This record gives sequence, C-alpha cells and structure tokens, in this order.
Amino acid sequence: MNAPLFEKLCIIGIGLIGSSIARGARQHNLAKTIAIADSSAEALKDAAALQLGDSFHAQAAEAARDADLIIICVPIGAYAEVGQAIAPHLKPGAILSDVGSVKQAVVRDLGPLLPDHVHFIPGHPVAGTEHSGPKSGFAELFAGRWQILTPLPGTDEGAVEKLAAFWRGLGSNVEVMEPSHHDQVLAITSHLPHLIAYTIVGTATGLEDSTQREVIKFSASGFRDFTRIAASNPIMWRDIFLNNREAVLEMLGRFSEDLTALQRAIRWGEGEKLEDWFTRTRAVRRSIIDAKQA
Amino acid sequence: MNAPLFEKLCIIGIGLIGSSIARGARQHNLAKTIAIADSSAEALKDAAALQLGDSFHAQAAEAARDADLIIICVPIGAYAEVGQAIAPHLKPGAILSDVGSVKQAVVRDLGPLLPDHVHFIPGHPVAGTEHSGPKSGFAELFAGRWQILTPLPGTDEGAVEKLAAFWRGLGSNVEVMEPSHHDQVLAITSHLPHLIAYTIVGTATGLEDSTQREVIKFSASGFRDFTRIAASNPIMWRDIFLNNREAVLEMLGRFSEDLTALQRAIRWGEGEKLEDWFTRTRAVRRSIIDAKQA
Repeated sequence: MNAPLFEKLCIIGIGLIGSSIARGARQHNLAKTIAIADSSAEALKDAAALQLGDSFHAQAAEAARDADLIIICVPIGAYAEVGQAIAPHLKPGAILSDVGSVKQAVVRDLGPLLPDHVHFIPGHPVAGTEHSGPKSGFAELFAGRWQILTPLPGTDEGAVEKLAAFWRGLGSNVEVMEPSHHDQVLAITSHLPHLIAYTIVGTATGLEDSTQREVIKFSASGFRDFTRIAASNPIMWRDIFLNNREAVLEMLGRFSEDLTALQRAIRWGEGEKLEDWFTRTRAVRRSIIDAKQA
Repeated sequence: MNAPLFEKLCIIGIGLIGSSIARGARQHNLAKTIAIADSSAEALKDAAALQLGDSFHAQAAEAARDADLIIICVPIGAYAEVGQAIAPHLKPGAILSDVGSVKQAVVRDLGPLLPDHVHFIPGHPVAGTEHSGPKSGFAELFAGRWQILTPLPGTDEGAVEKLAAFWRGLGSNVEVMEPSHHDQVLAITSHLPHLIAYTIVGTATGLEDSTQREVIKFSASGFRDFTRIAASNPIMWRDIFLNNREAVLEMLGRFSEDLTALQRAIRWGEGEKLEDWFTRTRAVRRSIIDAKQA
C-alpha cells in the first residue's frame, strides 16, 4: 500500500459531505490521521460512534492545528466564523479547501482571513443526496462525479495537483474553473432547480387540506421528484441563495420569461409551440445519458 | 387458474401505457384475447414482434369490434377521431375506458360520441416513465400505483367494479373520483411539475454554447432530475396542457406568486424567510415516504 497523500486531514463540519469525505479518505488510504470538528455535539457523537476519524473536536481550531489538508464542510454562512477561528492555527504549507456550492463568495469572505503561508484552493464536489448529517454519508458519493476546483491566480500548482489527487482518490473527475464561471453554471444546473423544487412543494402545502392529502397520495406523477430535491438541507440552501444571488436572479429571470411564454401558449391553445418546446427538451436528456451523467 | 375477467380486450394505442397494460393483462390472465390497434405502422410492427397481443390492426374500429373492454391509450388530442371511428362498432355492454391524464375534457369530448349501450368509465393510471413506444412498456408499471376511475353519475356499478378488478389485477390501487377534482389534483402533482421541468430544461438550451455543454456535464447537481421529466412524450404533454388549461393556469398562478416571493427574499437577503420555507418543504418529503409513494 502506498503512503497516504496527507499526514493529517482535518474535516470541519461532519454532515453528508464531510462524513463522505472521511469515509472515502479512510477507505482509500488518503490520510494517515483524520481530525473531525463540528459545532454540534450530536453530530460529533454520531461521527465518533461511526469511527469516522481519529479525533473529534468541538473547536475547529483544535482540529485544524498541524493539519496538512483542511476541508471546510459547513454551510457557507458559517465560513467567516470558521476562518477566523482556524486562521492563527494553520500550519505553513497546509492546503485549505472547502466544498461549498458557491465559489465567488467563498473567495471573497474566506480569502482575506487566511495567512499567506497556506494554499487556499476552493472546491466543490458536484455530488450529494437529499439527506443530511454524519450518518447519511458514504464513501462512494463522489465516484464518477465532478470535483470542481477554483484556485485563484498565482496559487501553487503543486498544491492544486495534490488536492486534485486527493479527490481523484475519492473517485472524482477533477475540473479547474474560474469562480465566477462556476457560479453561473451551477446557478442553472443546481441552484435554480432547487429553488423551483422548493417553490412548487411549498405551493402544494398552501392548498386546502383535502387536496394536500391527495398531493401526497398521487405524488408519483411527477411531484415526487421535486419533493426529493426540496428535502435538502434548508440552512445550506439558504446560504447558497444568499451567496449566489446575482447569478441565481439572472437565471431566474430567464426561466420566468420562458415560463410566461409557455403559460401564454397554454392560454391561447398554441399546441405547435408547446410541442416544439417539449421536443427540444427531450434531446437534452439524450445528451446527459450520452455524457454518462444520467 | 381462474377464467379471464374479459373475453376480448382491445387496446387502442400501443405506447408505454398501452403496451404495459397488454403485458400485465397477459401475465395476470385478465383477458382471453388481446386486440391491438395503432395508427403507426412501426408501433404495430414492434407490438407484433413483441407478441403483445393476438391481433394487430391499423384501424381502431376493427380491433374494437366484439371487445368487452376497450382502453384508449392515445394522446388526448386524438380521442375524438378514435371515438368517431369505433362508436358504431362497439358491442352492447362493452366497457370503454382510457388512460388520459385529464378527465373533464375526456368526458366532454368522448362521452357524446358513444352509444348508450356501452359503459363509459374514464380512467387514469398514475404511473409512467419518461420513455415512449411499445418497447418501453413493462407488466409491473402499475404495481403499487394508483388507478383513478372517474365514472359519470348513473354509471352501472357492476361495470365500474369489473374495471376496478382489472386494474387491481395489474397491481394498482383503485380510487374513484370526480373528473373535476381529478384534474385539479393532477394539475399540481403532475402537470405543473412537468411544465416547470420542460421550462427549465428549455431555458438551459437557450444559454450560450459553452455554458450549455457544462450544463450537461454538471447536470448531476439537480438539473438531471428535471431532464428526465422533460423527456416525456411531447405530443401527449401538449394535449394534457391544452385540455387541462384552467386548472394548470390556476396552479401556475399560485406557483408564480410563490416564486416571486422567494425571488424577492433572495434579492433582499431575507435568510429567515428562505430557511422557513425550505424547512416546511422537507416535511412534505417525509409524508410521501410515509405514504410509501417515494
């Protein structure tokens, strides 16, 4: 067996993503020791019971001390607090990364807090489920999925490559991208779909009680898929929308225009327009199947 | 083995649903013979190659002759034509049903065309996939799913019970409902989710080429689920929206109001409002899992 890539891995936030990284890192021998921090005593207890790491800490700073790789896995709104807490304790040459679904805001909020002697390389694994918490993680979560890294200009290439090797070790395909481009692409592929799913499921809960019960009953007809998406972690998603505001509002504007056009076509009975649109979207599914992301 | 429920079953339209009925009816010995009609020579050829029935007809009237149960499985826009073609050939006492996702329009368009001596019992199996055509059907499609029947007042109860027994034979749970109530419930559980999925997938195709390629690449982050829904049969869905216009526009109005409220919360940074909404929707998922429809 090869020597682990990192001596000490520190995971701050042991939810779905953090615990999946811990499991994968252990399984693939990517770190010699794993230190886990979480502000929730319950999550920490669960993580310890599941033996996800070698040490468990209520204070992020303690866990981060001497670590070679620190990965922040908390909701984006808590980054500044975590950054302030750990900054004085980071080892020179350590790599600091994260898994947030927004990258410009992370660069903006976290970057200035960090000492120059650490390699700050924001990251985003394009993988997840609707479940939360340390028990919901699994080592294969990242297998065959994309890991996007958004290093700033001038970042040490060796450090980027080492972090990329870590993620490839977890089974990911690694892609390097500009933070702003990341935020735009994810706004349409992830943030807007989640917002829409949250909306429609909420709309259904506003219906009268008798109809609501039937919405649950007959959910298999399409609604069900939206409820799965709309079951994702509320705090994480609140922070995503607040921190990718501009790109989300831009994509939402485009979506609303298109929806209004289809609404008008329904009202005026313009069948051909509807059929054309629905035929075009079918081809997109084909492309996703061809790209093996289905 | 018990005697089949029906002597002769006629399926008009041998797509995903029609072919699944044919397979299920054969597997569970629900009909002695199965006559299949489709206006597409290719679909008919495929159905024959798959041995889905005992006879195959380009003319619906031919297949319907002497049938005890006729199920129309074509897009709703083609119902009037089918109704006119088969009406003179329907056997007294025959049961005529359908599988359309809209029920008021079916009652309105098909009802007046039928002779009084047949039992007209509209139906809707709440089941499906994004695939189309006779090859995509499978006998288990209806297992554990709902079959909604919307008989008109005064319909023979024995006929309703016999049709219900047929669907229970296919594995469905049968529910009887008013056509107008059906259309309202399905507007929110099925029609609106499909419209929204079609919209957002179309919105993505309107982005510049480089972004579009990445939408496919990173689709696993949420978008993918929408593309599956938006790959459903375009003609079937065109007809659903045109024929359930009022209920769809009503639900769309509610959805748009809610979406605008969330959009405003994002723009103004109202995190608490977002978190509250996202927490509420999570509970809906729980209900669906409890109702065993997940």
